Formats: sequence, C-alpha cells, structure tokens
Amino acid sequence: MVKSQTLDRTFSALSDPRRRDILERLQLGPASISELARPTGISLPGVMKHIRILEEANLVTTEKKGRTRECRLGPEQMDDVTAWIQRYRDQWERRLDRLGALIDKRKGEAT
Amino acid sequence: MVKSQTLDRTFSALSDPRRRDILERLQLGPASISELARPTGISLPGVMKHIRILEEANLVTTEKKGRTRECRLGPEQMDDVTAWIQRYRDQWERRLDRLGALIDKRKGEAT
Repeated sequence: MVKSQTLDRTFSALSDPRRRDILERLQLGPASISELARPTGISLPGVMKHIRILEEANLVTTEKKGRTRECRLGPEQMDDVTAWIQRYRDQWERRLDRLGALIDKRKGEAT
Repeated sequence: MVKSQTLDRTFSALSDPRRRDILERLQLGPASISELARPTGISLPGVMKHIRILEEANLVTTEKKGRTRECRLGPEQMDDVTAWIQRYRDQWERRLDRLGALIDKRKGEAT
C-alpha cells in the first residue's frame, strides 16, 4: 500500500508542466523560491504550492537559509515509477509479439 | 506543447491506483466495464469515469459490442513518459558521480 501511495504521489507530482519545469531547473543545481519563479513565470505563492507538492513526493527538499528557502532535488529517484512503467511496456511488447505470431500463422494458412 | 499535454495526461491518468489496476487487468486481454468493476470493487459509474480518463490519455480504447462496451489497452506506449523519466534519472546519476568525485578529492586532500 505504501508503494502504491508512492506511485500516486510521484505520478501526480509529475502531471503538471510547471512542476516538471521546476524539476528540470533544479537538475542544474539548488535554487531559491524566487530564482525558480523568475524564469518559469510562476508567482511566488504558485511556486511555493508546487514545491510543497514536490516535497511530499520526495522529489524536492528545501532548507531555510537566512531569509530565503533553498530548494534542491530530493531523494526520490523514481525507481518504483520506472519499474511500473517498464512492466507495462514489457507486456505491451509481448502483446505485439503474440499479434505478430498470429498474423504470420494466418498468412501461412492463406498461402 | 502537444508533447507537454501528452505528459500531463499520461502522468495524471497513472496517478490513481484504481486506474493502474484497470490497466494491469487489461494487460491480460480485453474486458467489459462490468468485468472490470467486479475484481477491482469499483462501481460501474466509477469504472466508466476512470475509463474515460484513460481513453483521453490513449491508454485505453473502447468499442461498443451489442449491449456491452469492450475495453482494451490503447496505442499509448508511454515513450514520452519513459524518455522524460530517463533524462531525469541520467541527471541524477551524473549528480551522484560529481558528488562522488568531490568526496574522493576531499579525501585525497585530507590524507
């Protein structure tokens, strides 16, 4: 169940393009809330809301430094999400293989 | 922008455990709405709502067959989502490598 909630939170956090922009910015290094607001064009309260959601998903960690709050990538490396998607894609490929085999068989019967 | 919307829709569709359950059931083969409702314990209107969201994300397609609606996996193979996550994970590894190199350097200076 914990694993399912991790998936929920990660997928949900990644479903907003502004949150993905923030994560891409943080891949370059730590940034304050206002440094994140500037290039993305999101308001300060908006960035703070998104950062909270990303923090809950462990995708971001923040630390108070004097008058600013420094944000950096969190510990979540998306192993669970990657594993889930990979299982899905494997099934997809197996399904295509079966379909291919079926088509070959039909072709063989037709000739 | 289209690509971003695809990511939004896919991530959002995957953020609900019942929708992931439905996708896992459909990996075994096509199923009607009521066949999906039974094992998952979701109400019929609930399943229909989730199916609509999965359809919008191209993860499911449906077809009216007599009095039932048959659901099967859709054409979305999650290439964009996989590529996005892979880029993120690559950056993560590069960050760890840099950190490792920094630690080695400090160690070297300390001895």
